[in-house]
Amino acid sequence: MNSVTYKNRTIEQGELKYTGKAKEVYTTNDPDILWIHYLDQATAKNGKEKEQIDGKGQLNSAISHLLFDYLTQQNIKNHYLLSISKTDELVQALEILPIEVVTRNYASGHFVSKFQVTPMKKLTPIVQEFYYKSDALDDPFINDSQILALGYAVADELIYLRQEAQQINQLLSHLFSTINIQLIDFKLEFGRTASGSIILADELSPDNMRLVDLTTGDSLDKDIFREHKGDMTVGYHEVLDRLSHVK
Amino acid sequence: MNSVTYKNRTIEQGELKYTGKAKEVYTTNDPDILWIHYLDQATAKNGKEKEQIDGKGQLNSAISHLLFDYLTQQNIKNHYLLSISKTDELVQALEILPIEVVTRNYASGHFVSKFQVTPMKKLTPIVQEFYYKSDALDDPFINDSQILALGYAVADELIYLRQEAQQINQLLSHLFSTINIQLIDFKLEFGRTASGSIILADELSPDNMRLVDLTTGDSLDKDIFREHKGDMTVGYHEVLDRLSHVK
Repeated sequence: MNSVTYKNRTIEQGELKYTGKAKEVYTTNDPDILWIHYLDQATAKNGKEKEQIDGKGQLNSAISHLLFDYLTQQNIKNHYLLSISKTDELVQALEILPIEVVTRNYASGHFVSKFQVTPMKKLTPIVQEFYYKSDALDDPFINDSQILALGYAVADELIYLRQEAQQINQLLSHLFSTINIQLIDFKLEFGRTASGSIILADELSPDNMRLVDLTTGDSLDKDIFREHKGDMTVGYHEVLDRLSHVK
Repeated sequence: MNSVTYKNRTIEQGELKYTGKAKEVYTTNDPDILWIHYLDQATAKNGKEKEQIDGKGQLNSAISHLLFDYLTQQNIKNHYLLSISKTDELVQALEILPIEVVTRNYASGHFVSKFQVTPMKKLTPIVQEFYYKSDALDDPFINDSQILALGYAVADELIYLRQEAQQINQLLSHLFSTINIQLIDFKLEFGRTASGSIILADELSPDNMRLVDLTTGDSLDKDIFREHKGDMTVGYHEVLDRLSHVK
């Protein structure tokens, strides 16, 4: 059985609770702690395309670790607790909010096709979008009044999600700019702690954000996979390498 | 040539400017005035289904006339100027905003299928949705930050559209309740006058709103056509008949 020491206690990996698109979530002997294992897997089109990508789990785990560490230093409350191995980590168990928060600094992907705007058009003000997390409904785009009427969140929570996403956007945009990378857009998830506060959850990796080399314009994120532009791990390695040298 | 006297002047029908789903819009000899002609036509699925419906133009024109009169009495600024004939009217020429404002009191139609909620579920708070008016893009659902970033409207305009739609909802819901009809949802369009103020435009008819008999639950609107539930003019006649007897 896998176990790790965290705050002078032994945390033991428990049962598989949930398998996501690129990671497995396990319970532990502490109900407030989950054990995450990153998979060597990539999906596109909401899971309809899936592929084994050797080394991807380690890359996402390492990048997510560095980004959560950075946000923690910047006082952004989040679920990250401990890196256990190259592919495994401990996080706080949360009641995940059913709202995905997308922030867009530049037009890309779905936004370009939906509104027929020029790719990479700078968006001023930045665009924030909510999606209702539901595989059955295919994660529909949703607005505030729909969220409130359907009881998916309350008004104060939406205000908080917007503010928090905006602050995280400023922090991550700045961090990436120091390593010659442009943060195009990204998706965040949040969860509620036992005490009721809402904190950042999920992973922070090129699976959930678009990153472009400021000099070459090359994609360094999952678009490499989505758009069949070569070996995605090359881009992920580049992101990890540059992040590792930030000081 | 068709003409009519309005405010002691002769207004002459000019060229066909635009054909909508169920009406034609003509210029007049006054650049600030348009001549509307209602067609005996019904469409569904954003124009993909179309049918000739005898008498529908007169019904929509008459219902819209009564509803605009009512809103005018209630101090809602709007484009309606004069009823010319059973199918024709004069309205103010406006720069139409590219935003459709949908208000939902109860779950119906697209909202039910998108979120898999119970039909006729009461929505609290009411749901307000913006759609970007674009045939080419199929009128996409859009949120505030997208509208602002794409320059389709400014923040103050969105606040105004929401407030105005909310007030119109209260007024129309009340009016319909007095004639045993429930206002389920409706779509509004607004336009900018030469002096820059934004006022209610378009038509107010069962083509743009869902109306249900409070006793029988029967549809009295375009759902009769959309869902092939019989002769839509029967429902429209019923709405007109009840509205005509409001005092």
